[in-house]
Amino acid sequence: MLSVVIIGTGNVAKHLFRVLVDCENIQLLQVVGRNREAAQTFSGQVPVSSNFGETKDADVYIIAVSDGAIAPVSQKLIEKKGLVAHTSGATDIKAVYPKNRGVFYPLQTFSGERDLDFENIPICIEAETGFGLRILQELGESISKRVRVMDSPQRKQLHLAAVFANNFTNYLYHISETICRQKGLSFTLLQPLILETALKVEKTPPFAAQTGPAKRGDMGSVKKHLALLKDEKHIELYNLLSESITMTHEKKL
Amino acid sequence: MLSVVIIGTGNVAKHLFRVLVDCENIQLLQVVGRNREAAQTFSGQVPVSSNFGETKDADVYIIAVSDGAIAPVSQKLIEKKGLVAHTSGATDIKAVYPKNRGVFYPLQTFSGERDLDFENIPICIEAETGFGLRILQELGESISKRVRVMDSPQRKQLHLAAVFANNFTNYLYHISETICRQKGLSFTLLQPLILETALKVEKTPPFAAQTGPAKRGDMGSVKKHLALLKDEKHIELYNLLSESITMTHEKKL
Repeated sequence: MLSVVIIGTGNVAKHLFRVLVDCENIQLLQVVGRNREAAQTFSGQVPVSSNFGETKDADVYIIAVSDGAIAPVSQKLIEKKGLVAHTSGATDIKAVYPKNRGVFYPLQTFSGERDLDFENIPICIEAETGFGLRILQELGESISKRVRVMDSPQRKQLHLAAVFANNFTNYLYHISETICRQKGLSFTLLQPLILETALKVEKTPPFAAQTGPAKRGDMGSVKKHLALLKDEKHIELYNLLSESITMTHEKKL
Repeated sequence: MLSVVIIGTGNVAKHLFRVLVDCENIQLLQVVGRNREAAQTFSGQVPVSSNFGETKDADVYIIAVSDGAIAPVSQKLIEKKGLVAHTSGATDIKAVYPKNRGVFYPLQTFSGERDLDFENIPICIEAETGFGLRILQELGESISKRVRVMDSPQRKQLHLAAVFANNFTNYLYHISETICRQKGLSFTLLQPLILETALKVEKTPPFAAQTGPAKRGDMGSVKKHLALLKDEKHIELYNLLSESITMTHEKKL
């Protein structure tokens, strides 16, 4: 059985806590966080501390803090023998000071309130020794069916892909909602379409799933849409996305 | 019981056919399509014809053809007494020639192979008489729980919002897949993230759900991402989307 300490009290820490605390193969020893108040939300189930000097000895330390805090926080664990792993997609493994370092990156968007099905969340792991990898593999497999070993350049690339699939996609939803609101329409009308668009690419590659005026080269519809748009940024985005779609599909025809 | 003729043999026609043919309150009389071969795929279950002169008398004619074909196709129904409704989001009700005209727009993306849960698909209806509206309401409610009356300007606006939520979003998925492929990563790794992003906005407005470097004003991460991108269009899109996200969130803070 692996013993684990979670360092951090944000959304990733909360979700990892929730799934690990119920995990039979894992002994969750402690949550340590600089934010005393946030740390208290974990108390009752495991010991919490806001003093790094009190960090218990464990097989794995999971650092779930903001990217910029990984290095200074990991420095406080320099004396520890366990593996010290950060949870960031964009950060190199070398940001972790102790030599017994690793990465344990769950590829998902974490919000405080939402319950997530961890079993299907890809966990991207990296370590510098076979022993470290085996530890992270065991930890990952205790909560997910999709543990993948990858190096830092691959993980950073995946994180970049995730920015397009999550951050930018969510922003397009925001534009959609804004456009609906301009004519008193409810954004809920678009939700079945949004869900189907997301589900479709589980079976069909996005290139093949592409539809719409830009894909068809239907410049009449494009012009009508541009005439309806009011926000300068929406017009720029409509133009750039349409142009890119048209180019992508012309190229490959 | 309403009697219905479907005009057209494309994806929308196929999906409407599948749901209407099993519908107890609807008598699906016929499918009429110019494309003789495509029309044959409907045969066996209802009579099909590729000759508009043979169109049966029905309460409703659903024209599920490309936007540009709505006017000429509807002209062939000028003698009919039933309601003639097109299924296009972007097209004015007046594109239908016969005076007994209407719109029956299911807001969804239709692919040949996928089975859709019609019950949750919003059906946007429009007619010029109370009688016409009641007919379309009855037809809509026989397949969906979400029938909405809206005028042509509202429907066109909704269609524009759908281009952002569906066409453009799918294109971002395509970019994500391309970025994954560059480092030998499987796009399937992103699917749980894509699904969660879509599900999250059913409960949380997209503005509140926004995360990522641009939202946080984290220019360090933005620069690192830009350094990883190779395609000129991907760089332009990354810049424009990030700039728009930053502006949107600065404005509202």
